[in-house]
Amino acid sequence: MTQKTLEEAFTAPETPPAQPPVEPEAAPVKRQNKPTPAPKRRSKLAAQKAAGEYAQTSIAKFFEKNKHILGFNNPTQSLITAVKEAVDNALDACEQAAILPEVVVSLEKVDADELRVIVTDNGPGVVEEQVPHVFGRLLYGSRFGSGQQSRGQQGIGISAAIMYGQLTTGRSAVITSTIGAEEPAYRFVLKLDTQANRGVVHHKETFIWRDEEGVEMEHGTAIEMVLKARYREKSPSVQEYLRATAIVNPHANITFTDPSGETTRYPRVTETQPQTTKKVKPHPHGVELGELLEMLHATESSKLDHFLRSEFSRVTTRVVKGVLEKTYLEGATRPADMTRLEVKRLLNGFANTKLMAPPTDCLSPIGELLIKKGLRSVLEQTRAEFYTQPTSRAPSVFAGTPFLVEVGMVYGGTQPRDQPVQILRFANRVPLLYQQGACVITKSVQGLDWRRYGLEQRGGKGTPIGPAIILVHVASTNVPFTSEAKEAIANIGEIQEEIKRALRANANQLRRHLGKQERRKKMADKFALVQKVLPAMAEKSAAVVGKPVPKLDRVVAAIMDLVWITDEVRYENGTTRVELTVTNYRLRQDKFKLMVSLPPGVVTRVEPENATRKGQRLIWPVQGLGPTESCTMSFEVTGLEKGDYDEAQVYVTGINPLHILGAEVWTAVD
Amino acid sequence: MTQKTLEEAFTAPETPPAQPPVEPEAAPVKRQNKPTPAPKRRSKLAAQKAAGEYAQTSIAKFFEKNKHILGFNNPTQSLITAVKEAVDNALDACEQAAILPEVVVSLEKVDADELRVIVTDNGPGVVEEQVPHVFGRLLYGSRFGSGQQSRGQQGIGISAAIMYGQLTTGRSAVITSTIGAEEPAYRFVLKLDTQANRGVVHHKETFIWRDEEGVEMEHGTAIEMVLKARYREKSPSVQEYLRATAIVNPHANITFTDPSGETTRYPRVTETQPQTTKKVKPHPHGVELGELLEMLHATESSKLDHFLRSEFSRVTTRVVKGVLEKTYLEGATRPADMTRLEVKRLLNGFANTKLMAPPTDCLSPIGELLIKKGLRSVLEQTRAEFYTQPTSRAPSVFAGTPFLVEVGMVYGGTQPRDQPVQILRFANRVPLLYQQGACVITKSVQGLDWRRYGLEQRGGKGTPIGPAIILVHVASTNVPFTSEAKEAIANIGEIQEEIKRALRANANQLRRHLGKQERRKKMADKFALVQKVLPAMAEKSAAVVGKPVPKLDRVVAAIMDLVWITDEVRYENGTTRVELTVTNYRLRQDKFKLMVSLPPGVVTRVEPENATRKGQRLIWPVQGLGPTESCTMSFEVTGLEKGDYDEAQVYVTGINPLHILGAEVWTAVD
Repeated sequence: MTQKTLEEAFTAPETPPAQPPVEPEAAPVKRQNKPTPAPKRRSKLAAQKAAGEYAQTSIAKFFEKNKHILGFNNPTQSLITAVKEAVDNALDACEQAAILPEVVVSLEKVDADELRVIVTDNGPGVVEEQVPHVFGRLLYGSRFGSGQQSRGQQGIGISAAIMYGQLTTGRSAVITSTIGAEEPAYRFVLKLDTQANRGVVHHKETFIWRDEEGVEMEHGTAIEMVLKARYREKSPSVQEYLRATAIVNPHANITFTDPSGETTRYPRVTETQPQTTKKVKPHPHGVELGELLEMLHATESSKLDHFLRSEFSRVTTRVVKGVLEKTYLEGATRPADMTRLEVKRLLNGFANTKLMAPPTDCLSPIGELLIKKGLRSVLEQTRAEFYTQPTSRAPSVFAGTPFLVEVGMVYGGTQPRDQPVQILRFANRVPLLYQQGACVITKSVQGLDWRRYGLEQRGGKGTPIGPAIILVHVASTNVPFTSEAKEAIANIGEIQEEIKRALRANANQLRRHLGKQERRKKMADKFALVQKVLPAMAEKSAAVVGKPVPKLDRVVAAIMDLVWITDEVRYENGTTRVELTVTNYRLRQDKFKLMVSLPPGVVTRVEPENATRKGQRLIWPVQGLGPTESCTMSFEVTGLEKGDYDEAQVYVTGINPLHILGAEVWTAVD
Repeated sequence: MTQKTLEEAFTAPETPPAQPPVEPEAAPVKRQNKPTPAPKRRSKLAAQKAAGEYAQTSIAKFFEKNKHILGFNNPTQSLITAVKEAVDNALDACEQAAILPEVVVSLEKVDADELRVIVTDNGPGVVEEQVPHVFGRLLYGSRFGSGQQSRGQQGIGISAAIMYGQLTTGRSAVITSTIGAEEPAYRFVLKLDTQANRGVVHHKETFIWRDEEGVEMEHGTAIEMVLKARYREKSPSVQEYLRATAIVNPHANITFTDPSGETTRYPRVTETQPQTTKKVKPHPHGVELGELLEMLHATESSKLDHFLRSEFSRVTTRVVKGVLEKTYLEGATRPADMTRLEVKRLLNGFANTKLMAPPTDCLSPIGELLIKKGLRSVLEQTRAEFYTQPTSRAPSVFAGTPFLVEVGMVYGGTQPRDQPVQILRFANRVPLLYQQGACVITKSVQGLDWRRYGLEQRGGKGTPIGPAIILVHVASTNVPFTSEAKEAIANIGEIQEEIKRALRANANQLRRHLGKQERRKKMADKFALVQKVLPAMAEKSAAVVGKPVPKLDRVVAAIMDLVWITDEVRYENGTTRVELTVTNYRLRQDKFKLMVSLPPGVVTRVEPENATRKGQRLIWPVQGLGPTESCTMSFEVTGLEKGDYDEAQVYVTGINPLHILGAEVWTAVD
């Protein structure tokens, strides 16, 4: 049998040491169909002709020919993509050096169909020798497979933008950079040699880089390129991309000057740097067999158990012991000696072992407060009536890769009521403007039944209709984009599930808000009626019978039969004060508990003091409140900024919900 | 000014001769914002730290990490992608050597989550030295930018499939090939070195390759790989992919054995080879400035006019003369001496010159007859009631790239009536199964108002509902796929327009068919009623008054007041016979013209002979037909196969359409 022959015949003189041994692979190829005879000579000639035409294409040439895959589909999109690549680079660089970013984007008209893009940052700069590589080669970078969340991951973006400029206008790019005040700045004029995928420097000079006020730049980089581009104000646009970037990068100052010279500023709303991320080692549940084989052959460890402990995350001595026992493998085995079948057994062993999820300090969430703050600062002009308390989910995992999801929502204001909601999609703090339909974020939004949460939606499917903006941010060490243009996230089940959970948490708040609004309005109408009609009737009747006007409170209470709870949130001098008022419009005295969810921050004063605290909730007992009597509960929190918290979430237990207005019934299990 | 400085200082010692001269590029970089001061040392350290981490990633490593971009997203999709890449290769190879393809696909279960894929073809084979490159390197191939329509274009597919197998199972691939009976066959066991992007041969042997009957294989290739995969029957599936492949490759024999050992055959329905395609030179309207600069520096031509004439398509001596005059350029200029600004002028000159569209012999349409035949053969079991005469549009152009669109439609039979129509998408004869929503084909279908053509559609937008299948084929020398997985075609305006035109041509036929059906049914009901009731009434009345039963024909005619036209299409011994019967159910004798559209093929007999032919139509005068009289017109066509033509399109002119049943009124301008 061929299978046997192959195995025996195997001598592998060409096998490099890092290659695993080959096992019986091939069942003999069976012909199941007789080919149509064709002239022998013609066929052979065809094979030889083809042989003469085979060639290796460079990655740069490939993308030059397929530039639409990188997001350079037309002059509008190409401009946005080029700006985006440069700004992403700028923000990544600042973050890695823990510098609060100052990013200046400016567009200048060069020709009817050509624009100059200049993006300047105050990042750490790029060392001189690396400039031609970083900006002149594709797939060259510092973050490929680094196991760390960053905007750039591939080492394609900025070089591709320069390549596009060169392809469409024939012009070089200019890179200016300095890495410290004691060093001179340098300026490179460079092009890409796409055939060789390398940067070619046409000119280089050093100089003192000064800002407009003559102050020397301490560190930073400026990228300048001219490209065939069209600037427009209608969505999708550069302005829209920068506005969205400002929302999820509230620590950045972004300045934008459009081709007409008009400047827009997006000032930072926080001085807090994003959490710096750590690199994470691979997780055993996310490694493929072939990958593991390669690692085993490349490792410096001389023993299997040491290799496992040192090259994976979440693999403790105890885990290694358990897995080795389960798989009948020896911890002392030399990694390079492992056969394919042993490796397969090892992987199965891990698959059947419960492991801790990968560490999550490789991820940097924006955080609930900053999402709200970002939304509020950029969307001020919409005068929205309601911002949800955003949800920042705990990290989760797909195929061994950590990721997390954050969602925020805005409702009402000047947003159109008869249009589909606006979905703001983000991946690693970068706005996604194209290919909305192909993205897991869109699919997740469309997969929820929004009618339950107070938005219109045909048949409970598809994008809901209403004056809402939904922000979704997916952060991961390796965001699974559908293409190199990084415009849409692939439809991965685990990611979709997490997005939906976060969406529901926000949608529930919206439902509560809308419900509260509606019920309040109805009750206010009823109250107004009762309190207007009854006294008038009483007065008239009293006058007729010549008796004094009776006290009507109890009558009103009998008609309303409600406990009414109102809340008020005030912000003054760094203190957020929340006050709840309970009024008893019933004939009996109810005994129940009143709860309110606490915002982050330090709780400084609680009144009355008989409240108990349970996690992020404050609970007061309410009793002895006679008909038409009121009482007030309050607390104060410091450490918040204005707008961080503006609607209290109030709950009750121990009372029939039919008799409550202004609070939800607490249904969670304590 | 810096701009001046740069220009003057430019010496370009590193410029290779093929690089164009650099012109003033850079406006001085202006700092518009003062950076937040950061500790100098920290910033410098960050720059140096980053420098140590920069690295070049190989294209193979990149795609190994981003395998979902290539269509290896999950075990189901990965299996389909791997089969697709191998089958595409097989069909391309056969076509280039003008061999009628025999493709055998077989799947074997190796392990719970592993399948072996074996794809054998009778193509010309691959010469020995090229095997490790063709199957072991990414971006290696013979068709990149060749200006020729083919399934594979990138040189990624098959090596990527092998890489995926190796990554997920650690196993090598086995390639068997022979290029002629006088040569031995050889078998390679190989892996990919993804770091170096090259094939590593672990074993190689020569042998005599015999089929099951012991006959030596004259030429062909077999690819065998084991991968982590899941086989399923539900759509999308391997079976579905092969079925769709058979529709648009009616010249191929395809045999498929699934993991349970069951075999399905898709026999060829034609012996006609697809038109062989020619390579096409670039068209001046599709070339970018940077590209043209590069061509000018790489050319062997010593004069600009010669360069233009010899390296572009559709650039005649007259065109060159006109463009040079318009742009004040000299034909004798040395191409490499052209400056960027001159090149820009030249391009503008071409942009303002009307040129012939690129030649179209680089494209190979399936053709109207073969599309119908393919649909009919594969969809036999749906027992559809109507196949449109497919549309194969003349080639068109986007960004200088030739393309063409073909559309066919099937209606009725066992297809569900309350579901969205099925859209079969194809690019260069390859079925597209994933990312339907991102594809220009889907967008084009959704952009038509199908309610006008007899299908349901909510609000006249979106995928229509009904028992229809719509086949759309886009062929191009460079199909603009949205990603390397080649699953969706980008939304290019010119392509969308062409698809819509072809869709409308088919939709109109559907509308006519449905209208005819409906009117016929109504009239038949009326006829049946009139012809049953009237004679019965007449008989009764005659019996009562004791007189003979009157002749009722004229009465029926008076009631119906219609000219009824029926058509019948019969196929026998290679001859298609079309017979039209005209019956006058009116009281007057109308005088009008009867037209029928002719199918392709040779018209052998026309009766009566007083017909005139106008393009693809036959026209008979009809007159002197008394009430209740009939006449018959007929013609015969040879050169068609059974089913090629099965519903005549009949038109009339010169008569009020209200009095016609069974024909459309001819509204086109002659």
